[in-house]
Amino acid sequence: MSLKTTTWYFFEDFSLGQELIHAIPRTLTEGDASLYTALYGSRFAVNSSDIVAMNLGFEGAPIDDILVFHIVFSKTVPEVSISATANLGYSNGVFGAAVYPGDTLLVRSQVIGLNESSNGRSGVVYIQTQGRNQRGDMVLDYVRWVLIPKRDPASNAPIDAVPELPTRVDPQHFTLSPELNFETYETDLCGSEYMFNDYEVGEKIDHINSMTTDATEYKMAAQLFQNPLQKNLIYEGHVISQARVLSFNGLANAFKIAAINGCSYYNPTSDGDTVSAWSEILEKAPITNREDVGALRIRTFVTKNKSSTKFPDKDSDGQYHANIILDFDYWALMPI
Amino acid sequence: MSLKTTTWYFFEDFSLGQELIHAIPRTLTEGDASLYTALYGSRFAVNSSDIVAMNLGFEGAPIDDILVFHIVFSKTVPEVSISATANLGYSNGVFGAAVYPGDTLLVRSQVIGLNESSNGRSGVVYIQTQGRNQRGDMVLDYVRWVLIPKRDPASNAPIDAVPELPTRVDPQHFTLSPELNFETYETDLCGSEYMFNDYEVGEKIDHINSMTTDATEYKMAAQLFQNPLQKNLIYEGHVISQARVLSFNGLANAFKIAAINGCSYYNPTSDGDTVSAWSEILEKAPITNREDVGALRIRTFVTKNKSSTKFPDKDSDGQYHANIILDFDYWALMPI
Amino acid sequence: MSLKTTTWYFFEDFSLGQELIHAIPRTLTEGDASLYTALYGSRFAVNSSDIVAMNLGFEGAPIDDILVFHIVFSKTVPEVSISATANLGYSNGVFGAAVYPGDTLLVRSQVIGLNESSNGRSGVVYIQTQGRNQRGDMVLDYVRWVLIPKRDPASNAPIDAVPELPTRVDPQHFTLSPELNFETYETDLCGSEYMFNDYEVGEKIDHINSMTTDATEYKMAAQLFQNPLQKNLIYEGHVISQARVLSFNGLANAFKIAAINGCSYYNPTSDGDTVSAWSEILEKAPITNREDVGALRIRTFVTKNKSSTKFPDKDSDGQYHANIILDFDYWALMPI
Repeated sequence: MSLKTTTWYFFEDFSLGQELIHAIPRTLTEGDASLYTALYGSRFAVNSSDIVAMNLGFEGAPIDDILVFHIVFSKTVPEVSISATANLGYSNGVFGAAVYPGDTLLVRSQVIGLNESSNGRSGVVYIQTQGRNQRGDMVLDYVRWVLIPKRDPASNAPIDAVPELPTRVDPQHFTLSPELNFETYETDLCGSEYMFNDYEVGEKIDHINSMTTDATEYKMAAQLFQNPLQKNLIYEGHVISQARVLSFNGLANAFKIAAINGCSYYNPTSDGDTVSAWSEILEKAPITNREDVGALRIRTFVTKNKSSTKFPDKDSDGQYHANIILDFDYWALMPI
Repeated sequence: MSLKTTTWYFFEDFSLGQELIHAIPRTLTEGDASLYTALYGSRFAVNSSDIVAMNLGFEGAPIDDILVFHIVFSKTVPEVSISATANLGYSNGVFGAAVYPGDTLLVRSQVIGLNESSNGRSGVVYIQTQGRNQRGDMVLDYVRWVLIPKRDPASNAPIDAVPELPTRVDPQHFTLSPELNFETYETDLCGSEYMFNDYEVGEKIDHINSMTTDATEYKMAAQLFQNPLQKNLIYEGHVISQARVLSFNGLANAFKIAAINGCSYYNPTSDGDTVSAWSEILEKAPITNREDVGALRIRTFVTKNKSSTKFPDKDSDGQYHANIILDFDYWALMPI
Repeated sequence: MSLKTTTWYFFEDFSLGQELIHAIPRTLTEGDASLYTALYGSRFAVNSSDIVAMNLGFEGAPIDDILVFHIVFSKTVPEVSISATANLGYSNGVFGAAVYPGDTLLVRSQVIGLNESSNGRSGVVYIQTQGRNQRGDMVLDYVRWVLIPKRDPASNAPIDAVPELPTRVDPQHFTLSPELNFETYETDLCGSEYMFNDYEVGEKIDHINSMTTDATEYKMAAQLFQNPLQKNLIYEGHVISQARVLSFNGLANAFKIAAINGCSYYNPTSDGDTVSAWSEILEKAPITNREDVGALRIRTFVTKNKSSTKFPDKDSDGQYHANIILDFDYWALMPI
């Protein structure tokens, strides 16, 4: 019998500092961008229109940031996710160079933390993943941690090393290409008149629109991303896309995701759920050396089968509503 | 609470001559063309093959005319359709410059008519919409009218002004780029031996093939077109695509839609319906200064769950069959 | 009544040596490649990454061989398949020039055999089909035979002429462009460390992963391929794609299909089936003048709703399992 199929990693197979080279570099094309639009219906103008993008100094319409996230993430699945019993969290996700059709993404990871569970049957592995383009420019760098079973509960555990992870990415590190210039940004072409200065910390936005989760679309999305883990359970990445797409109505000028601070997946969602979203502005920050664009820290809640009009959050007992799927904490850039 | 989401228009918000700039210019790509093929299965040779198209003088395979229609139409939805209780009609739709992958469409509309309903609770708004490419060339110009509720039934209505609209587009205005030459048109590569001179006014064509309406495909199509109005009810645009695709078998050489004279949506269709079509040739017209191509005025009926073999139209009581979904009246160009 | 729709062929309409020009040449684009990925989830590195492909001497990522097969095959459907009551077999399928986005495929066939059924009501037609690119290079040449009804059982049958067809393609005829060089092939980017020399004749590989057959995906695939025959019954081509995609886990370095020896479709599959696959290495062969790449003859069995762990094949009574859908016999190339 052949053993030529890929075998998954158990907790004992990881070691601190270990480097993982993820296979199948992916060239992103206009076809991938169109499929992302068809699967999610995203409408951000910079990603939809070469004209709008080039007027701002982009080479053309860049690939949607969340599609870049999906491609990079999916490359790590064979080594990281297939054996994981739970995807526990995200931290310190930073987007770098814009990705254009024709760019090829290569993905590597490093094990930056290990922590055996007290019951000795599994352990948490902290993975820092970096996607680079064909020129070696970083396009996305993030940390996630997953619960991985041990092959043998009696085996010696690796050393415990829990990394210190920030609860938010420091916006002082955000940079924008000097070729970009938002002074000519045309709000009437972008879907909203509200710019950076119009938003206030603490402001809540009901995104009004809803969308229906469709199992076939989810399957096609996972296949487009070349995620080999086909589960009926819809993974959080799909809901992150829904969060971003729904946020258009109320945050249409948030043209770029700069960073992912964290993401929690509270309740499962499946075929037929009606998904809504609302957001809270958590922080506002300037971008170093830029007077034409600022950063909004946004927390978007995605609900299933429940209107977001009343901004559902926690129940009276302090627990998250059973209808809350996702809590996505990120920084987005918006012209001032 | 934030009010940053887009608000829809009530009847009182429209005024005669009002200009609407629709957001999110869209760059159409080869990816969009492939998705259109995957969602509808269209087979017209000029849109499928760079070789066929370039032999006729096109720059390459142009984007399907009905995909251009969907993109332009969908851009108007936030201002025009979201609050509409009914989409009442279409008139005077003219296609202009061919659209190629890489072209960006910008869409503007003007209010050309207003007519309050006798009950004072709503009114008909007549909208002329024009899509242009990045060079400013008109690619599609059409009128539609919709029924829009009033915010306050007691409010003063805008002035009544019902525009005069043609029941057909005058084919004298059709023009074709002088670079196009249909003398080398190869019928064996295009799917039919029947050319312009083979069709007669009054001739009826059963298109034989049928297709199944699929709710997921419909959802993906609406998302591809960036139509933010997600309804379970399938809108007439989806059926216009079905009409055009089904007409291939019998009208394969009708390589281009020149104009939309009108379109009536009689009965709803939904997931699982088996859709068929038949057409009648209403008129034949020459194209000014061209001896290699003529215009056929075609009326295509689309039926659900009913064969089109017997050309179903009206029942004995003069009413349209309950199985007729759409009546689409258009001009198509065909080599002579 | 119009008779302008295409009419299908009966057995009497075929004659030995008859040439068929299939309509609608198709330009394949990056959009088509992305849709193929979204519909099947294929992960072969050469087809996914311009970087990997160009490092080996390709012009860029070539179009997946099985997508090329689908496009060529679908063009023959109006003349060959629509009237067929059974698709009986495939033989002598040889892939030629690599297909890149932008290439246009033109398809012609020749009738190479005819054999009336003993009951006089139908006959087997043997068709050799060749797809060429816009430069006239052969990209795929294969034989299939189908059972076609007679228009009139009393009519005289055409001459009986059953061609001699090989049970396997001779690997001595395989050629590879001299620009290709696999000495720099990077296994860590391609998903497996196992190369040509690691496989042995008789070796069986359980491909472990499974996928779910989805009726909407199937419909979109058929539409993408412009296959006008829309049936609820899933045709074998869809399962050939599933076979190839599932084989990635265990044969990731089989970067190209060189030839199709045969393909048998034993049992139908439909929406919701869970599909698995296993393969046996039937032969190994060198490629003339190449020391960097060899050919593996692979037989892949696809099962429905049955694990492939125990390599299901025939039952104790010598019949194929009711859960075996497809038996696909092909040559693939792999770096040494």
